[in-house]
Amino acid sequence: MEMNIALLPGDGIGPEVIAQAVKVVNAVAKKFGHTITFKEAITGAAAIDAVGNPYPDATHEVCLASDAVLFGAIGDPRFDNDPSAKVRPEQGLLEMRKKLGLFSNVRPTFTFPSLLHKSPLKKERIEGTDLVFLRELTGGIYFGEPRGRNEQGTKAFDTCVYSVEEIERLARMGFEFAMKRRKLLTCVDKANVLATSRLWRETVQRLAPEYPEVTVEYEFVDAVAMRLVQWPKAYDVLITENLFGDILTDEASVISGSMGLMPSASLGLKTKLFEPIHGSYPQAAGKDIANPLAAVLSASMMFEYAFDLMDEANIISEVVNLSLEKGIVTEDLSEGEKAYKTSEVGDWLAEQIA
Amino acid sequence: MEMNIALLPGDGIGPEVIAQAVKVVNAVAKKFGHTITFKEAITGAAAIDAVGNPYPDATHEVCLASDAVLFGAIGDPRFDNDPSAKVRPEQGLLEMRKKLGLFSNVRPTFTFPSLLHKSPLKKERIEGTDLVFLRELTGGIYFGEPRGRNEQGTKAFDTCVYSVEEIERLARMGFEFAMKRRKLLTCVDKANVLATSRLWRETVQRLAPEYPEVTVEYEFVDAVAMRLVQWPKAYDVLITENLFGDILTDEASVISGSMGLMPSASLGLKTKLFEPIHGSYPQAAGKDIANPLAAVLSASMMFEYAFDLMDEANIISEVVNLSLEKGIVTEDLSEGEKAYKTSEVGDWLAEQIA
Ligand SMILES: CC(C)[C@H](C(=O)O)[C@@H](O)C(=O)O
Ligand SMILES: CC(C)[C@H](C(=O)O)[C@@H](O)C(=O)O
Repeated sequence: MEMNIALLPGDGIGPEVIAQAVKVVNAVAKKFGHTITFKEAITGAAAIDAVGNPYPDATHEVCLASDAVLFGAIGDPRFDNDPSAKVRPEQGLLEMRKKLGLFSNVRPTFTFPSLLHKSPLKKERIEGTDLVFLRELTGGIYFGEPRGRNEQGTKAFDTCVYSVEEIERLARMGFEFAMKRRKLLTCVDKANVLATSRLWRETVQRLAPEYPEVTVEYEFVDAVAMRLVQWPKAYDVLITENLFGDILTDEASVISGSMGLMPSASLGLKTKLFEPIHGSYPQAAGKDIANPLAAVLSASMMFEYAFDLMDEANIISEVVNLSLEKGIVTEDLSEGEKAYKTSEVGDWLAEQIA
Repeated sequence: MEMNIALLPGDGIGPEVIAQAVKVVNAVAKKFGHTITFKEAITGAAAIDAVGNPYPDATHEVCLASDAVLFGAIGDPRFDNDPSAKVRPEQGLLEMRKKLGLFSNVRPTFTFPSLLHKSPLKKERIEGTDLVFLRELTGGIYFGEPRGRNEQGTKAFDTCVYSVEEIERLARMGFEFAMKRRKLLTCVDKANVLATSRLWRETVQRLAPEYPEVTVEYEFVDAVAMRLVQWPKAYDVLITENLFGDILTDEASVISGSMGLMPSASLGLKTKLFEPIHGSYPQAAGKDIANPLAAVLSASMMFEYAFDLMDEANIISEVVNLSLEKGIVTEDLSEGEKAYKTSEVGDWLAEQIA
């Protein structure tokens, strides 16, 4: 197969971990006889520094022309505590999501048997956890207008908006995921307070009869924030709006004890994007110590979700498991044993595939 | 001292647990020579059924005339999955908070040595956790206008609004709490996305120089959702807006393993309200099995925050600790030993105080 892949390494440790994903993708392509063309483009703080825009048009063109985007991370502490900064790296991320129509952020949380002891939670609580969030990614309070300040600057406001169509396309994807999994769908909202949440709940209730095999539960976001910690195994597929998803998917990632390993996919209208969830982690940037496994597993999700190539996807998760078992891991996982460099882990994984 | 206390038992297990708090308050009053006048009033689903309004004017008058309100819980599953219900119990709660000016919800999370093993988290992660959230309670997306639907019903919207004054009064309370504690204040926001969050951050940054002894940290809400599970001991005082506070305080309550025991105080302009955080828990209502300790500890917070009577507050927490040590507990905590009834626990606590 011929594949056009856009590479957006971004900020912080992004470039280092994406470089390892590329090694792995190349090894898979060679083994299975695919032809891959990579095109690299700038985003985030790097792009602000270079051209004053965190998501330049040229980068957008590269993404549009791609079958899939491999994305590193965006974010730079220089901008975080400066509420008056005019351009922020995160704006690039949001613009990219919106312009590429990436309305569904797929965030699995699962456990690795060899890493269970790393979790802050007790083993019996998390063993076998296998849930996936579909977070709505191009609507809600992230994009609603009006937003800003009153003239005197004494008041600020944001608007959360959802249309039935936005909810419906995300919800249908949720039902379809549930059909392929354990057939349990949880709609997470705050319908006891928010008008938008009531539209979410109504819409999901209207669709439910079309998927009679799926059991649908409705839970308030605050209750889910608790139950995720108490008993994550209770969940299968969770659907939710943008801001709730932001909070809950990060919370969920930490229960597995393997946050540095969690990949994600953003699906939608114009292309598909694959991204480790760990963020730019600036403290580790440039040191060749960052854990590349989340980026590598994002490449595995790419073969599955963008190209429907399950053998290619599976061989990647298998070598990742092998690296964990054999201790070919970076310092965050090495536990007093030899710590490998980011680049060494990437090399090792690529060799195993070959 | 003479004290006027409004009793709002509310829905579900509210009446049962408030009854135990009353026994304890009476015992304390007798011991320390205070005169207490209780006035009971209706709220929630109970009030909808009785007079069609979850926070009737008569109830508001009782609260206004009180020095403190002891509140049970509001909420009834009859209303939860009916997005079209015209009146909801929760509206009464929100109206009460707004009309009484209860702008700061104080939610401590701490651990009980004898209950550490109940937590889903590992002991070493939580032992010694002692944090307190100040959640803004009368602003933000809970109250902002406009909210509702477009004419065709195809779109819904909510508005999040904050004024500098609303942020400042909550933030000042946060600095003052920090001064009396470990002098660490964490401002939780989403300043990389939301205009309201940027005003929060700016306001806190402006006030910080007035409290030079307090270390101020700024963290994004998604990061806090993770770190609360990873290392809750890192926090001392956290301030945040209404919706983030709703989610994070519930998450925090579960890490201690003692969710059924966590009290809260809502402070503000016209009176002070004290409330167990467990909610109405309808499945247990009427069975005399609900754990009354959170309501009883809310009464302890009442003596501290409404009347500045520390001896009275402390004796209550001491007898609660004693009941835990001696196993005079309801079935949620009895672990195969004898389970006491809600009312028996209340009687025992009152006797110990006498
Ligand atoms: C960086 C930030 C704008 C972003 C978000 O809130 O969506 C991040 O937290 C994420 O989850 O991808
Ligand atoms: C019942 C609901 C409206 C309420 C809230 O969201 O504030 C509750 O969750 C709480 O935290 O007191």
